[in-house]
Amino acid sequence: MLLLLLFLLPSPQPGRSARYDPTWESLDSRPLPPWFDEVKFGIFIHWGVFSVPGFGSEWFWWYWQKEKIPSYVKFMETNYPPGFSYEDFGPLFTAESFDANQWADILKASGAKYVVLTSKHHEGFTLWGSRYSWNWNAVNVGPKRDLVAELATSIRNSTELHFGLYHSLFEWFNPLFLYDASNVFTTRQFPTAKSLPELYEIVMKYQPEILWSDGDGNAPDTYWNSTGFLAWLYNDSPVRDTVVTNDRWGLGSICKHGGYYTCSDRYNPGYLLPHKWENCMTIDKQSWGYRRNTRLSDYFTIEELVKQLVETVSCGGNLLMNIGPTHDGRIDLIFQERLRQMGVWLEVNGEAIYGTKPWRTQNDTVTPGVWYTFKPKEDTVYAIFLNWPISGTLILGAPKTIVGETQVKLIGYEGQLKWVSLGEEGMTVAVPQLTPDQLPCQWGWTLQLTTVN
Amino acid sequence: MLLLLLFLLPSPQPGRSARYDPTWESLDSRPLPPWFDEVKFGIFIHWGVFSVPGFGSEWFWWYWQKEKIPSYVKFMETNYPPGFSYEDFGPLFTAESFDANQWADILKASGAKYVVLTSKHHEGFTLWGSRYSWNWNAVNVGPKRDLVAELATSIRNSTELHFGLYHSLFEWFNPLFLYDASNVFTTRQFPTAKSLPELYEIVMKYQPEILWSDGDGNAPDTYWNSTGFLAWLYNDSPVRDTVVTNDRWGLGSICKHGGYYTCSDRYNPGYLLPHKWENCMTIDKQSWGYRRNTRLSDYFTIEELVKQLVETVSCGGNLLMNIGPTHDGRIDLIFQERLRQMGVWLEVNGEAIYGTKPWRTQNDTVTPGVWYTFKPKEDTVYAIFLNWPISGTLILGAPKTIVGETQVKLIGYEGQLKWVSLGEEGMTVAVPQLTPDQLPCQWGWTLQLTTVN
Amino acid sequence: MLLLLLFLLPSPQPGRSARYDPTWESLDSRPLPPWFDEVKFGIFIHWGVFSVPGFGSEWFWWYWQKEKIPSYVKFMETNYPPGFSYEDFGPLFTAESFDANQWADILKASGAKYVVLTSKHHEGFTLWGSRYSWNWNAVNVGPKRDLVAELATSIRNSTELHFGLYHSLFEWFNPLFLYDASNVFTTRQFPTAKSLPELYEIVMKYQPEILWSDGDGNAPDTYWNSTGFLAWLYNDSPVRDTVVTNDRWGLGSICKHGGYYTCSDRYNPGYLLPHKWENCMTIDKQSWGYRRNTRLSDYFTIEELVKQLVETVSCGGNLLMNIGPTHDGRIDLIFQERLRQMGVWLEVNGEAIYGTKPWRTQNDTVTPGVWYTFKPKEDTVYAIFLNWPISGTLILGAPKTIVGETQVKLIGYEGQLKWVSLGEEGMTVAVPQLTPDQLPCQWGWTLQLTTVN
Amino acid sequence: MLLLLLFLLPSPQPGRSARYDPTWESLDSRPLPPWFDEVKFGIFIHWGVFSVPGFGSEWFWWYWQKEKIPSYVKFMETNYPPGFSYEDFGPLFTAESFDANQWADILKASGAKYVVLTSKHHEGFTLWGSRYSWNWNAVNVGPKRDLVAELATSIRNSTELHFGLYHSLFEWFNPLFLYDASNVFTTRQFPTAKSLPELYEIVMKYQPEILWSDGDGNAPDTYWNSTGFLAWLYNDSPVRDTVVTNDRWGLGSICKHGGYYTCSDRYNPGYLLPHKWENCMTIDKQSWGYRRNTRLSDYFTIEELVKQLVETVSCGGNLLMNIGPTHDGRIDLIFQERLRQMGVWLEVNGEAIYGTKPWRTQNDTVTPGVWYTFKPKEDTVYAIFLNWPISGTLILGAPKTIVGETQVKLIGYEGQLKWVSLGEEGMTVAVPQLTPDQLPCQWGWTLQLTTVN
Repeated sequence: MLLLLLFLLPSPQPGRSARYDPTWESLDSRPLPPWFDEVKFGIFIHWGVFSVPGFGSEWFWWYWQKEKIPSYVKFMETNYPPGFSYEDFGPLFTAESFDANQWADILKASGAKYVVLTSKHHEGFTLWGSRYSWNWNAVNVGPKRDLVAELATSIRNSTELHFGLYHSLFEWFNPLFLYDASNVFTTRQFPTAKSLPELYEIVMKYQPEILWSDGDGNAPDTYWNSTGFLAWLYNDSPVRDTVVTNDRWGLGSICKHGGYYTCSDRYNPGYLLPHKWENCMTIDKQSWGYRRNTRLSDYFTIEELVKQLVETVSCGGNLLMNIGPTHDGRIDLIFQERLRQMGVWLEVNGEAIYGTKPWRTQNDTVTPGVWYTFKPKEDTVYAIFLNWPISGTLILGAPKTIVGETQVKLIGYEGQLKWVSLGEEGMTVAVPQLTPDQLPCQWGWTLQLTTVN
Repeated sequence: MLLLLLFLLPSPQPGRSARYDPTWESLDSRPLPPWFDEVKFGIFIHWGVFSVPGFGSEWFWWYWQKEKIPSYVKFMETNYPPGFSYEDFGPLFTAESFDANQWADILKASGAKYVVLTSKHHEGFTLWGSRYSWNWNAVNVGPKRDLVAELATSIRNSTELHFGLYHSLFEWFNPLFLYDASNVFTTRQFPTAKSLPELYEIVMKYQPEILWSDGDGNAPDTYWNSTGFLAWLYNDSPVRDTVVTNDRWGLGSICKHGGYYTCSDRYNPGYLLPHKWENCMTIDKQSWGYRRNTRLSDYFTIEELVKQLVETVSCGGNLLMNIGPTHDGRIDLIFQERLRQMGVWLEVNGEAIYGTKPWRTQNDTVTPGVWYTFKPKEDTVYAIFLNWPISGTLILGAPKTIVGETQVKLIGYEGQLKWVSLGEEGMTVAVPQLTPDQLPCQWGWTLQLTTVN
Repeated sequence: MLLLLLFLLPSPQPGRSARYDPTWESLDSRPLPPWFDEVKFGIFIHWGVFSVPGFGSEWFWWYWQKEKIPSYVKFMETNYPPGFSYEDFGPLFTAESFDANQWADILKASGAKYVVLTSKHHEGFTLWGSRYSWNWNAVNVGPKRDLVAELATSIRNSTELHFGLYHSLFEWFNPLFLYDASNVFTTRQFPTAKSLPELYEIVMKYQPEILWSDGDGNAPDTYWNSTGFLAWLYNDSPVRDTVVTNDRWGLGSICKHGGYYTCSDRYNPGYLLPHKWENCMTIDKQSWGYRRNTRLSDYFTIEELVKQLVETVSCGGNLLMNIGPTHDGRIDLIFQERLRQMGVWLEVNGEAIYGTKPWRTQNDTVTPGVWYTFKPKEDTVYAIFLNWPISGTLILGAPKTIVGETQVKLIGYEGQLKWVSLGEEGMTVAVPQLTPDQLPCQWGWTLQLTTVN
Repeated sequence: MLLLLLFLLPSPQPGRSARYDPTWESLDSRPLPPWFDEVKFGIFIHWGVFSVPGFGSEWFWWYWQKEKIPSYVKFMETNYPPGFSYEDFGPLFTAESFDANQWADILKASGAKYVVLTSKHHEGFTLWGSRYSWNWNAVNVGPKRDLVAELATSIRNSTELHFGLYHSLFEWFNPLFLYDASNVFTTRQFPTAKSLPELYEIVMKYQPEILWSDGDGNAPDTYWNSTGFLAWLYNDSPVRDTVVTNDRWGLGSICKHGGYYTCSDRYNPGYLLPHKWENCMTIDKQSWGYRRNTRLSDYFTIEELVKQLVETVSCGGNLLMNIGPTHDGRIDLIFQERLRQMGVWLEVNGEAIYGTKPWRTQNDTVTPGVWYTFKPKEDTVYAIFLNWPISGTLILGAPKTIVGETQVKLIGYEGQLKWVSLGEEGMTVAVPQLTPDQLPCQWGWTLQLTTVN
């Protein structure tokens, strides 16, 4: 089947010299398309059949049926008839309130520059009408709509966000995968019949700019034929010039092979990494998928989220902040509030985030809670401070001033700030006295330092 | 039936001298139990079968079936099978996530001192297992639980909030009511068989401290026998000493008879009223019942809500701020966020709200956005200012200082503030320079003025 | 409420002399309207919410919730979610296949001359849109249709069947009834608010020719005010001239007061009774309501049903043969087959059933399985024999022949049969030799004996 | 995938000489296992998701969605919410009343000797838990049970019936099939990924004795690789010695290749065929799948069914009589009645059916409604006459008597019948005069003619 399919894919383009071999050595040599490092901030969307129970985690099926975690078992016993299966949630995934244009507005308002949607999670349910997932996809079951197509169209029509797709290689309970696993992956029924055809299908149909692979199911990349697929993706696919991928392509590939590194969920090392990376984390601290029964304290405050963004960008990462829509297609208002708060912050401080590079120092050596970013072309260092100094002055240990050249401004505030050089010990900046209405923003402020060493 | 029932009610208490006749003249002479004016702030909860569609308004049934508003008709045609009736929403009102203790915690955290739950809205569905509403109540249909009892118990066990019940006299589609209406209320099948027995039932079972009557259906109080019921309530019911009622007891009674006045939904006159009143309003600007498909801008911000509270209390009213729980028994996180923000504000500024009286002036004569409250015993006037003065000084036109006696403090801030008398023109107060972390709160601040005229 | 209602009922008709007092003595003196004894054969229809589970019996609710019979409890645990209540079956009572004209055709084809429909069984769910059973009736819940009206109209438009209504006085779980019962029926909330208004309502709306009362709930007729109602029914109701009632009007009234006697379910004494009676029985031997999971052996064969009819009519009774339609409004094909078989039999043998009187002897004194009916005007005795004599001759011990006058025919067969007088010992009749196709019918044959003593 | 799978299949057995090539020439040369011709009578069972709507036909999906037949479209619009898809019927296929042992009893009682169950119809839903039909099979969706396994076990444990499986090659709406079809079957994604793996799977798991293939979707057998599969089935499968197949293996194969011929649905030519054939027909004249809303006249009477059986067997065919169980797993009582009536008939007349061969004449040359079967070893010809002669004598034009040897009996009746030779014109038989109770059966009788020419 795969051979036939490949036959129908676009042929290699004449005149393009660099081609990649299906080896990690070759594939890892591909430069990351530059747009990705510039955008810094994206929104991750975990949506699927797991959004229907909205209980515990997007790993609901696994925890309930495989691990038999008591709280999950009890939840089902209490609320559903005997014999109710996970598949029975499919028709209840209705998405009747899903308005892709509204989602696009909300995402845009957050200041994010890219979005990554779970085209298919480990449950195997495809949010598009896959030819290879008949009767377990959003066009046949539940919404009766191609959710991937709708969101892609709205994002592209009404925003400048880059559109990316998450895709799980393995599927917890797919009998073909279980069959292969029982054969210690010496058979390959599942990648041949399902995961690889799907990958080609979503690339051809939706031309994603990010392919966020996940879920190797403890199988090696050779089982998945990841290098073969990536070689096609980089050489011959319609997104070969722009597509970005991550590092989850088979057992052992994470943090080692592929495009940018994710290393682990909620990865936020706090120091500069030599390879482009991404911190994927969740506003709901406990789950990627929507949970119905949460408390306000389960959600990060905007102060905490700004801190995540600032730390991540300062250390060379991108932040991929996750929301979990509801089964009926809504983005919960608490997510909307956080997204819009983030957008308000970036409206003011975006110049210290977008398009920046890590500076030589990440967080300040003297004052805690100060993180740096850098724009070499503008000769500008940004010092983002998360706590407003009560003393009225901020001591920065890292930047060295240059007499007569260094200038300091508070972003969102007119006029220059006064500062005093501390020589090799850095500098002291006097922050202005501002009433609540005069503050440029409420949760984290940025000093723009021009011409410092 | 009514006679039999009355026979079983408690007898008049010997030794209580004042009794009320079933006339408005007598009933209106009853003093309002003092607790109500002291608490100032309550939470209104609209919950019922209308929470299931969660579309448009708690008047869903009426707008859909009676007014046939196109958006409602289309919503039903799009999402439900032909012939689906409002009654079919009953079993879908599941309340499986309803945890009365959790609600009590959330309500308590808001700083509210009373709660009013819709025991029955115009749809006629009783949230308790009424003997007079068989198969159209929460014990027989949907939750299979006595929601009134659960909330009453939790509120009383774990908070000091007063527990009140909303009750709609009429029911849009009750055939007995429609029959009476078709007879221009010359027959009284409905009040005899349903509304009056229900009122006695909820008073006896749940002993509410507020009875928030609503919905006269254009019928006079004589049809409802409101004065007869209120005489029993004030003379002989178990809550006769503490119960507070409102003014919606029949055509023409609103803003004229009964306990405190509500006058209209979202009533907020902006000036002092001679009779105790209440501003009942909604966090969701457009609906009392839960709506699923809303935007963040549909909700009041915390700044706007604080303003509502301050204005209302200053003018002698109580604020009854409404939330609409979901069909499965959750308080949406955006409501939780607003409630907790309000609680944070009251934690600091509560002394300027609870137990206060209106002052001689309500809002300041010189500086807009300043509202006064008063504690006569403490000889203290509170000036709540909603905008922090950029100039660093606040001019108050209303209070007249007394040399050597007047003191000014910012609530939540140590130390006395400096001020200058403007004689008959009031005073000028110097507000301190504070960083964001030093501010006592974020949205509205209170000056405590001791010993002013 | 009742007084008001009565006020609206038709006034007594001037010129009608005989009126009945609300006493059993007076009411029992009313002659049974003659049509009832002439028609002999009716169809009973048990249809309601109990048809939805279709398990065990129409007493499902009681057996499950009150008696907690294990098979019922297990059925619910196995097939429905926890907390599923009987009320939740209401919306599942869909009746989407109900076609009253089709029912009328089927009923007519059975040869029946009347039909009795359960307008309301002990569950309290009214098949019409009762004003007194809001949200627990077929117009608000489930079918969203007035099933009583539809069937009445079709029966009257396209057949000559008399239309009757079954009505249960008590309701197992109506809280008003339970309240009265807990007061040992010294209170009368339930009959006042529900059962009596309903009775007046169905009489006025549907003008039934039979009122088949049932279910006294161990309460005396004084609790139900049965005599008061019957006096109105006989004196002033629109059906006062034609209506027939039965004998189930309160504790102790069965087989003693009212119209015709039913004495017990499936009453078939086998001898002549002095008072008109009815044998109500079921084609499904075990249940009145539809059961889904049955075996063919649970149903009476046509041979057994013909036997029931013949025995009953011979002894002066009417046969009311019950069918239980499905929740979606179908008459199961096995019922249709039995009804049509009965119709085929009556097509041939109807003259020995309809309009007959009991003869001096019911079953023959010599040959078993021979039952007599009588038409005095035609001077004809009918001897229905259920077994075809192998010998070719049938000995009848009861009839005494008259020389030169007595004639014998086999209904459905041309020509006279030969017979021989046995004097006081009766007669011998020679039955013809017939092939299967020549037999007038398959299960029970009739000898028409003209002019015998 | 297929190669791997084949690798796991049993190897050829050493010592078996005859092997078949994957060519029609070779495959058609295989002798039909003899059991099939002996059993004569089987029951066909059409059960699947189409049983849920139970409307119109088992082709519901096609007629509704593809042909958009108005009655189907209206049925859906009237009874289901907008957007309801055929897949949504899956979870409603509950089978909660399915008791395989009860089915086995009913099937056994019919006198049938084999049963053929639709393991998968054109809808693609497998009644077993196929690895190749994830989430569209009875183990994942709906019953949550392996219906094929349950029936196979019960049939084999408690009856002597042969167990067969129907299997549809094509699937109306499978996107892989539609893809191949759009490529004019030059691609073969569907047979590779679905139909062939399924065929191997059901043979290995359930070892059916009949493989009743259907539904070529206008694709040639080369597309389906039918000859390859049949070669394996005949050579190496575990049922290679006993399995019987039919003739529906690709465009043009019907009535031409494979095992026995079916030629068309309801094929009943009325004359002797040179190749073994089967008349598959339905008790419900209009549908193979269950229909809810039928009339009694839609079903064949037992007289008509006996006629079908007699004609078919006389002409060398087998009768495969179809029933359609309900979505909840019941065999409707009208089917049970017909099956048991057939069993009653075969209990008496089975010796003229089972194990017989066609005689030189099929239906009598003189008397209509007389059909012959033959047992060469017993030198017995059976003349089954469907109408009892009114004259008392039956003229048979076909058999030539032999003086002193020919004997005639009526099966189920003691004693020899008198007969008269008509020479070359046949014979005349005197049938006895019998009362209804004396008749051996009610609908068709058999003369056993020993030693005739």
